[in-house]
Amino acid sequence: MTIESAYAELLTHLNRIHRLETVAQLVGWDEQVNLPPDSAGLRAEQHAVLAETIHAAATNPKLGDLLESLEDASLDLRDDERVVVAEARRDYDRATKLPASFVREKAAQSSVGYHAWAKARASSDFASYVPVLEKNLELAKQEAAYLGWGDRAYDYMIDKHDPGMSAAVISKLFGELKEALVPLVRQITASPIKAKRELLRGFPVTGQQAFLREVTEKLGFNYRRGRIDVSLHPFCSGSGADIRMTTRFNEDEPLDSLFSSIHETGHGLYEQGLPLAHHATALGRAAGMGVHESQSRLWENQVGRSRAFWRYFEPRFRETFAAQTQGVSSDELYLAVNAVEPTLIRVDADEVTYNLHIILRFEIEQRLFAGTLAVRDLPEAWNAAARELLGLVPDSDRTGVLQDVHWSDGAFGYFPSYCLGNMLAAQLWYAIKAQRPAIEDEFARGDFSGLLNWLRENVHAAGKRYDALELSRRVTGGELSPQSLLRYLRERYLPLYCA
Amino acid sequence: MTIESAYAELLTHLNRIHRLETVAQLVGWDEQVNLPPDSAGLRAEQHAVLAETIHAAATNPKLGDLLESLEDASLDLRDDERVVVAEARRDYDRATKLPASFVREKAAQSSVGYHAWAKARASSDFASYVPVLEKNLELAKQEAAYLGWGDRAYDYMIDKHDPGMSAAVISKLFGELKEALVPLVRQITASPIKAKRELLRGFPVTGQQAFLREVTEKLGFNYRRGRIDVSLHPFCSGSGADIRMTTRFNEDEPLDSLFSSIHETGHGLYEQGLPLAHHATALGRAAGMGVHESQSRLWENQVGRSRAFWRYFEPRFRETFAAQTQGVSSDELYLAVNAVEPTLIRVDADEVTYNLHIILRFEIEQRLFAGTLAVRDLPEAWNAAARELLGLVPDSDRTGVLQDVHWSDGAFGYFPSYCLGNMLAAQLWYAIKAQRPAIEDEFARGDFSGLLNWLRENVHAAGKRYDALELSRRVTGGELSPQSLLRYLRERYLPLYCA
Repeated sequence: MTIESAYAELLTHLNRIHRLETVAQLVGWDEQVNLPPDSAGLRAEQHAVLAETIHAAATNPKLGDLLESLEDASLDLRDDERVVVAEARRDYDRATKLPASFVREKAAQSSVGYHAWAKARASSDFASYVPVLEKNLELAKQEAAYLGWGDRAYDYMIDKHDPGMSAAVISKLFGELKEALVPLVRQITASPIKAKRELLRGFPVTGQQAFLREVTEKLGFNYRRGRIDVSLHPFCSGSGADIRMTTRFNEDEPLDSLFSSIHETGHGLYEQGLPLAHHATALGRAAGMGVHESQSRLWENQVGRSRAFWRYFEPRFRETFAAQTQGVSSDELYLAVNAVEPTLIRVDADEVTYNLHIILRFEIEQRLFAGTLAVRDLPEAWNAAARELLGLVPDSDRTGVLQDVHWSDGAFGYFPSYCLGNMLAAQLWYAIKAQRPAIEDEFARGDFSGLLNWLRENVHAAGKRYDALELSRRVTGGELSPQSLLRYLRERYLPLYCA
Repeated sequence: MTIESAYAELLTHLNRIHRLETVAQLVGWDEQVNLPPDSAGLRAEQHAVLAETIHAAATNPKLGDLLESLEDASLDLRDDERVVVAEARRDYDRATKLPASFVREKAAQSSVGYHAWAKARASSDFASYVPVLEKNLELAKQEAAYLGWGDRAYDYMIDKHDPGMSAAVISKLFGELKEALVPLVRQITASPIKAKRELLRGFPVTGQQAFLREVTEKLGFNYRRGRIDVSLHPFCSGSGADIRMTTRFNEDEPLDSLFSSIHETGHGLYEQGLPLAHHATALGRAAGMGVHESQSRLWENQVGRSRAFWRYFEPRFRETFAAQTQGVSSDELYLAVNAVEPTLIRVDADEVTYNLHIILRFEIEQRLFAGTLAVRDLPEAWNAAARELLGLVPDSDRTGVLQDVHWSDGAFGYFPSYCLGNMLAAQLWYAIKAQRPAIEDEFARGDFSGLLNWLRENVHAAGKRYDALELSRRVTGGELSPQSLLRYLRERYLPLYCA
């Protein structure tokens, strides 16, 4: 077999796996958007058979043989081909080292976990959730052990979402961030100036839908290859050929829905920007969750909360919601957009205190994996950390440890990505501003294409060629650090609250 | 291997195939309900990889070995187990006896056929469609030959949709029906009394949605295991654990949407009534398309067009649409529900003349397969039959031979199911009335549970144990015949039009 034909055959395998994965994603999207309440049993079985099918395709011994031949001929491959082969090897090893029975068990548990979480959260009943969480933690450790990370299970979970990242690196970054961020939050919240989000009440859902459609289209989301629907917890799934975003609506929290939607649009724009012809390989895949979050955060925060963005959209917002915005001044609206107020709920948090929510989860996950914290003691540990970092104590587990969906699916090691994304977003933002000093004037004219094209060229087009640390070096010229994020937060919030 | 373990292993295979099929159905549902306009390419690839996966599972040689062992030990199987094995054998032979090259050719032709039909219909250009139809006919005959029905190709196509049925049986049934139905239609259409559906105009979609939700829930559809959405053409898919129905809305045709929805609800109730634990085997599968249609038709026609149904729902209908129904009398409303008017288009036909559309197609399909009618002569034969049966002649092939999608996909032998369903529905209806003489009083009180329970017990619970002919004998005590349908049509329509 020639190298060319081996590589072509590798692509056939990867394409097949990718198509099956997109089917599984669609089935998962449908579960959160459309599933009738008593159809969860069938859905769990569907997930299980898909996981098994994907596993069989991903562990096909022919794929292993092809990888070996291509690795032997590595010197004759082009750079891009080497990237594809290396990533396929990583996936192949991950897939082959997990027994089929384990994969089945985990898939079934994932669906069970979601429904158990939803039920436990609804009734703030942590006790009923304990066995599920213990099982998930056990499965995560088992998975790490199968992959040869037995002694570094948490690093495995982190690397899974953010290749190249580790608990030690994050510890250092988060430590540096925490040290400066806690006093910054104190300084802002001590200010007598307070955002009045309660001024924004009674925004009809149909108006919110129309406005967010206009905004997300303006930002560049291609609705001919995607859609937005409603789910309990907003998310973005699918491949760039068919992106499924979700949001949620609350008549008295129009900014919640708007910024959730902009956030998911940031994810969607990244996926739509990845090279379409290469979606099945590393050349067309996201670099990792940290980079993914840098995209959603950049659009949500650096763009969506800027003066320039509102210069363009405020008149449109007032037009859509004339009655609701009548008594609200421009300054009040802008302050509401940039409200800073510690809250118990991560997804309701402003972008300043949000990072403290992540630091909390990172510290707790470390202890869970180190075995220094038992699942049943989670509520207590959670509440203590919330008091230390946020100055608030949950009145029930519903607003505490039960608030997030992630662990119900075994997604440990995922939370840090959000804060890494915030750091990278800020660092990218100053890199862009250095190259396009007038970019905010473009926003004020309703033109976001300059930013989107810059991101397409510098971030999206690279696919998974570089991890977050390497991408930071190449695109921003510096090591990933919390300093740009701190600078950005000071520049945005101190003039508003502590001028 | 013991019989018990061979049977258990057979069930594992069948369950896996069934779960994959439900995934493929969900992906198909999503395509018609949610797909973004430029995502069709990915969707086609997803369908292809699922079809390949299902085919691999259905042709697994281990499945063939299991079937052989179980057939050898047939005498030791319980009756139910024998039913399951026989049906699994039927499926296995269908999946394995067709050469891969033939399956590929047929799949490719199916796509070619659809587009050729759509194009030919749009421009009413039958000539361009001739080679496609000739090819489809040829492939159908080849398929029959591969399966050992070489000398009875049309019977094979019929049996594929309605096990146990044959052209000879249908010929006799349809002959008897035609003889009485043609004069009945003449009698009704000669009446000076005409339904005025144009009285019903401007019904807001939200009201229609609320009303059909109330109706379908009242009929017994379990929305905890299903939902209804909007698509271009109404359909019902999924298994009883998660039924996905669709409808469509037209503000000026509220009855179209309502009766489409009741029709799909009939299909949905059948699927929801099939034994949940046995969905993957013959014990929990629909008996065939004729029986399926008997369920949708019974709810749509015998129930939905009855006086008793409207006695209960008319006040609700008027409450929901007060302005729109103000000038419409009860008699006018009921006559609109039971409008009879010959039309050229099958899908627009009322329940009386609908059967003539099917008889027309059956007669033509018989001649096509017998070789006594050439494809190129179809328009002439179609138009002659339309004149004879409906008293109407298409002004173009668009409203004649080109109106249906079925043949473009090679789905010959499918049409008869619709009319067989009508016959069986009427026959079931009189059997129910004999056992529950007051059933219409129950309807008038808004209670449809007596009917649903009867159908569950007598039809749904049997799964695929009995074909339509045997089911008729067991449940109605008589051979399937057109007499009940004729009696029902006379009892419903003569008092309205010819009293």
